Amino acid sequence: MSADRSLQILLDELGRLPGIGPKSAQRIAYHLLEADPEQARRLAAAIIQVKTEVHFCARCFNYATEQECSICSDTSRDRTRICVVSEPRDVSAIERTGSYRGLYHVLGGVISPMDKIGPEQLHVRELLARLGAEDIEELIIATNPNIEGETTASYLARAIKPLGVCVSRLASGLPVGGDLEYADELTLGRAIEARRSL
Amino acid sequence: MSADRSLQILLDELGRLPGIGPKSAQRIAYHLLEADPEQARRLAAAIIQVKTEVHFCARCFNYATEQECSICSDTSRDRTRICVVSEPRDVSAIERTGSYRGLYHVLGGVISPMDKIGPEQLHVRELLARLGAEDIEELIIATNPNIEGETTASYLARAIKPLGVCVSRLASGLPVGGDLEYADELTLGRAIEARRSL
Repeated sequence: MSADRSLQILLDELGRLPGIGPKSAQRIAYHLLEADPEQARRLAAAIIQVKTEVHFCARCFNYATEQECSICSDTSRDRTRICVVSEPRDVSAIERTGSYRGLYHVLGGVISPMDKIGPEQLHVRELLARLGAEDIEELIIATNPNIEGETTASYLARAIKPLGVCVSRLASGLPVGGDLEYADELTLGRAIEARRSL
Repeated sequence: MSADRSLQILLDELGRLPGIGPKSAQRIAYHLLEADPEQARRLAAAIIQVKTEVHFCARCFNYATEQECSICSDTSRDRTRICVVSEPRDVSAIERTGSYRGLYHVLGGVISPMDKIGPEQLHVRELLARLGAEDIEELIIATNPNIEGETTASYLARAIKPLGVCVSRLASGLPVGGDLEYADELTLGRAIEARRSL
């Protein structure tokens, strides 16, 4: 195989990654060509390792290498609260805040009739089963504040409230450090509706 | 190893790539986690392949998988012209223009006293040897139009002109599609100096 061909294959594969256009792919490919072979080997190994070792947690569908993920198997967490998110990446985002010490449940998507995704295509049945089996007091719905996320949140609230579990939703409002002048009307409207007494 | 740990290793390795910040690394890592295992395998394989198969051409120091690169071994190329570039990526850039059908010589850098890189650290000796051994009529110096590139170009011109080879330099001037108003003074100055009669 010629050098151009090897390089073209690498460029094609890099180009499939999100946010990597032809120019970035080229920059990365030449960087790898010039890099220490050990660095390139480590990157390739890290890609393979993450794909072979990481599976879904049997309880909450977060990423895990064991049967259960590191959060579900952490006995120091508050086991009376479940935060429902759409994707495993949302778990990382919430963990980074340090504001939440409960468990999670990853739906694996959101309700989206346009894409033919209903509750049956998500891990909703497993969530209801957990609510029956575990001693849960509060369910915090943390789907994205967009149409699909809101639809999913209202569906879950309707399905779960009758079970006697307290259901809450992340607050919508102005982002911290944001500017009233540049906030969109919907966000500002939400912030006004959800105003809190001081 | 936990899922967080596997993911962190991948994030660290992705973060070493040029132009990939923490946010991009995370986006790519989650993309790979969600992607078809075959896509991840192909990317890892392409990285390994490019590092094991691609070496430097024995003649021009471009990337090659054989003893000589695909350009040096292409008998249809004009073998009386050598275009001198700093890095192998510059060969690709010039090839993409389709305006040049000669050979190349990759210096492997530019003269930069600050970084302790002189002609001895570059493939200048090999270039002089080629001028003696091959039947070269013109040397086109295509180092970047910045201080180091210009220094390298003048050094090469001084060293090579006495050998009776015609030495030229890529034109500097306004980029095609550019705008006079936004051109920096140096570029505009060069464009005026190098004006051509119509």
